[in-house]
Amino acid sequence: MTEDRLPSRAEDFSEWYNQVVLRAELADYAPVRGCMVVRPYGWALWENIQAALDKRFKATGHVNAGFPMFIPKSFFEKEKEHVEGFSPELAVVTIGGGEELEEPLAIRPTSETIIGHMYAKWVKSYRDLPILINLWNSVVRWEKRTKLFLRTTEFYWQEGHTAHATAAEAEEETRRMLDIYTDFAVNEAAIPVIPGEKSESEKFAGAVITYAIEAMMGDCKALQSATSHYLGQNFAKAFNIQYLDVQNNQQFAWTTSWGLSTRMIGAIIMVHGDDTGLILPPHLAPIQAVIVPIWKKEEEKTAVCEKAGQIADELQKTLRIKVDLREGVTPGFKFNDWEMRGVPLRIEIGPRDLAASSVTLSRRDRPGREGKTTAAWEGLAQTCQRTLEEIQQSLLERATQFRKDHTSDPTTYEEFRTAVEKGFALSWWCGGSACETKIKEDTKATTRCIPFEQPGGTGRCIVCGMEASKKAYFGKAY
Amino acid sequence: MTEDRLPSRAEDFSEWYNQVVLRAELADYAPVRGCMVVRPYGWALWENIQAALDKRFKATGHVNAGFPMFIPKSFFEKEKEHVEGFSPELAVVTIGGGEELEEPLAIRPTSETIIGHMYAKWVKSYRDLPILINLWNSVVRWEKRTKLFLRTTEFYWQEGHTAHATAAEAEEETRRMLDIYTDFAVNEAAIPVIPGEKSESEKFAGAVITYAIEAMMGDCKALQSATSHYLGQNFAKAFNIQYLDVQNNQQFAWTTSWGLSTRMIGAIIMVHGDDTGLILPPHLAPIQAVIVPIWKKEEEKTAVCEKAGQIADELQKTLRIKVDLREGVTPGFKFNDWEMRGVPLRIEIGPRDLAASSVTLSRRDRPGREGKTTAAWEGLAQTCQRTLEEIQQSLLERATQFRKDHTSDPTTYEEFRTAVEKGFALSWWCGGSACETKIKEDTKATTRCIPFEQPGGTGRCIVCGMEASKKAYFGKAY
Repeated sequence: MTEDRLPSRAEDFSEWYNQVVLRAELADYAPVRGCMVVRPYGWALWENIQAALDKRFKATGHVNAGFPMFIPKSFFEKEKEHVEGFSPELAVVTIGGGEELEEPLAIRPTSETIIGHMYAKWVKSYRDLPILINLWNSVVRWEKRTKLFLRTTEFYWQEGHTAHATAAEAEEETRRMLDIYTDFAVNEAAIPVIPGEKSESEKFAGAVITYAIEAMMGDCKALQSATSHYLGQNFAKAFNIQYLDVQNNQQFAWTTSWGLSTRMIGAIIMVHGDDTGLILPPHLAPIQAVIVPIWKKEEEKTAVCEKAGQIADELQKTLRIKVDLREGVTPGFKFNDWEMRGVPLRIEIGPRDLAASSVTLSRRDRPGREGKTTAAWEGLAQTCQRTLEEIQQSLLERATQFRKDHTSDPTTYEEFRTAVEKGFALSWWCGGSACETKIKEDTKATTRCIPFEQPGGTGRCIVCGMEASKKAYFGKAY
Repeated sequence: MTEDRLPSRAEDFSEWYNQVVLRAELADYAPVRGCMVVRPYGWALWENIQAALDKRFKATGHVNAGFPMFIPKSFFEKEKEHVEGFSPELAVVTIGGGEELEEPLAIRPTSETIIGHMYAKWVKSYRDLPILINLWNSVVRWEKRTKLFLRTTEFYWQEGHTAHATAAEAEEETRRMLDIYTDFAVNEAAIPVIPGEKSESEKFAGAVITYAIEAMMGDCKALQSATSHYLGQNFAKAFNIQYLDVQNNQQFAWTTSWGLSTRMIGAIIMVHGDDTGLILPPHLAPIQAVIVPIWKKEEEKTAVCEKAGQIADELQKTLRIKVDLREGVTPGFKFNDWEMRGVPLRIEIGPRDLAASSVTLSRRDRPGREGKTTAAWEGLAQTCQRTLEEIQQSLLERATQFRKDHTSDPTTYEEFRTAVEKGFALSWWCGGSACETKIKEDTKATTRCIPFEQPGGTGRCIVCGMEASKKAYFGKAY
């Protein structure tokens, strides 16, 4: 940690974000342009995200596998929209073992193509379907402008790839996985998200339909937080994934893909953080509560530290706990340090607490006196668990209220132009790409999604005034 | 699974190995030369290996992190032995986002260099040490001859990288991690290993000392199964990892690195497998017991399958269980299928078992009648757990006996030459590279390791007859 003051979010949101990532030691800049090193604290957060998702994937019948990072460049030519979308972003290996390669190898930007190639080999009959595979790995996209966690040349994610015998089953899978992402975002990351469908211009290169969850960040911009693609038979036809059905007819399979990345860490920082630093949702925090023993005189130290250790041993059975026994730094320094790192709950124990058989609890989501309470040693684990659940809920409520306060329903295009400067606009849209393009040119805002939740009925498109049957969210996005 | 017979190990060990990997669906050949796809069953095995190691790493204070796959090619020039060892094997990215890169990027073959670069940035004072970081990732080495799991262009592994204030602490760490690998190999993979030091010619490029665990495969060849390197100050000096000590003097740090890879899966296959297929050690098996319901008449089916389901529900609480309810294939087909996949225990339940309130247990490590017992429903979970522990122990004993039977102590060089054709030779060695080279040229055998366990005293070098203070293991290796 440097001694300089963290810029406030109002002053410079972007610099506040960069500084929080570095000072909380979530990540650092790598010596290669656009790449990041995820430091142990950031990686522990990612491991908790992985565990929460992996549990949900396995409960719905998915299994993990490991696919190679190298994909023959020619594979990208086989699906015409896919190649247009991804070719400009590829990193290409041309030399291996000191020699020029006969065919250059792309480093995967996403694995639909090599998955298609292998599934074609593995699938023979309807009995081999569905295939429900997920990969935890990293992918590479050559990005011009990068930002830690939000857009890096290499990033970590999971990519699910499934193949089914029918269109209906594949569509159902696509929606099921979006529901899992929604559930994860709301109940683990405490981030309210809008599940919906992407417009034609915003969908994945090669998909028939792209669904996404969209979240509002602390600067009122949108972040696409996970996507789930219904690929129809596009990749099955490009890579020849065919099966014999019950009537012994050759059929092409129907496929899906879906992903969530380390971007989610960026979302957590930007949704919950405050001017003091990070605030982590208790369900995902690597350290849920930090115990800070406080002493002035040397003779108090032994008793206070011993009790802190006892409490830690007890709480560790059910919570992720750290005891800060560092010497040579003040309690105030420790408080600031753990606040910067967003630990949801602080447990202070000093000589006075010792005398009263209690501790002082400080909630990270409520700075100052307001978040302080005294808690007895008796039943402390339950008190902490309850408090952590309250913090988890309060973070979700606060973020939901914030989004509500910054979402409007403008009645004219002039109002719309102001609205997307301040947050999201939820407006009737005819669905035409001309109106979408005009909005983008006039305001830099884009269609975020056409939410599943619709008012019903019809209205007038906010741009052209034609009759529209659906509302869409518009906003500036990361 | 194909219908063709699996070649026996005696007939063609190498082809037996390849076929087992493919038929058990552990892995498949990728469309890129030398790369593999780890299929869900193989990946589940790898996840269990990861969990068993990760638990040990965390218990000894290590934390995980994520480092980029790209390393500037110039980094490799900074440590002179490292560059000689790894330059010929690099895969190099020369194009990114459609443009030629100013500096080519190597894909990591191992991360000492980029670790050194970042640690130099992070370490300021003795208070920042030790750093105990581990990475779970994949690395790329351009290999000429490849074999699934044993030597692939891209492979999965963990690489630990630590930095310390003193040489003694770094040496202790190097040995601690070798102990962890030994403990894992013996107690989880049921593979007896020989921990020891590598000779000068066999050590890691850039290391001061390389320790390794060596195992004997089913064809009597050696497989180096994990390594732990004491790097001294070589990388600290090359990358300038310096810290201020307690007396305020600048000092170079002392570093280590250590790794275990998906090669371990190859070892498990080759140590335990038999002519029927894979045999997995129960501690790591993705499926510890498979329940096969058996019925002839349609009216038996419901009762048998219902009971199989009940048993599965009960056993699932403590074991990794699969029920094979497939229709249209015979019980015999299912038996063969799960034997090929090496599931340690089979639980058969048919109408006769139903009547007797029992099941038939079949141990994978004892084919035929010898491995069959009847077990009551009452206390079945404990019976299965006990049986699985017996299988785990018996696999370890069998492999230990096999190694003993194929390790000799030749008295003349002529005997030595015959001995290394049949297994390991444990012989006095003067430590000179000339003798080592002669052995390699005459027999293709190499120094596997100088074991920690030594007889004491001295003897005559098996090659030159000079006085030698240590014995070494020699053998042909993968």
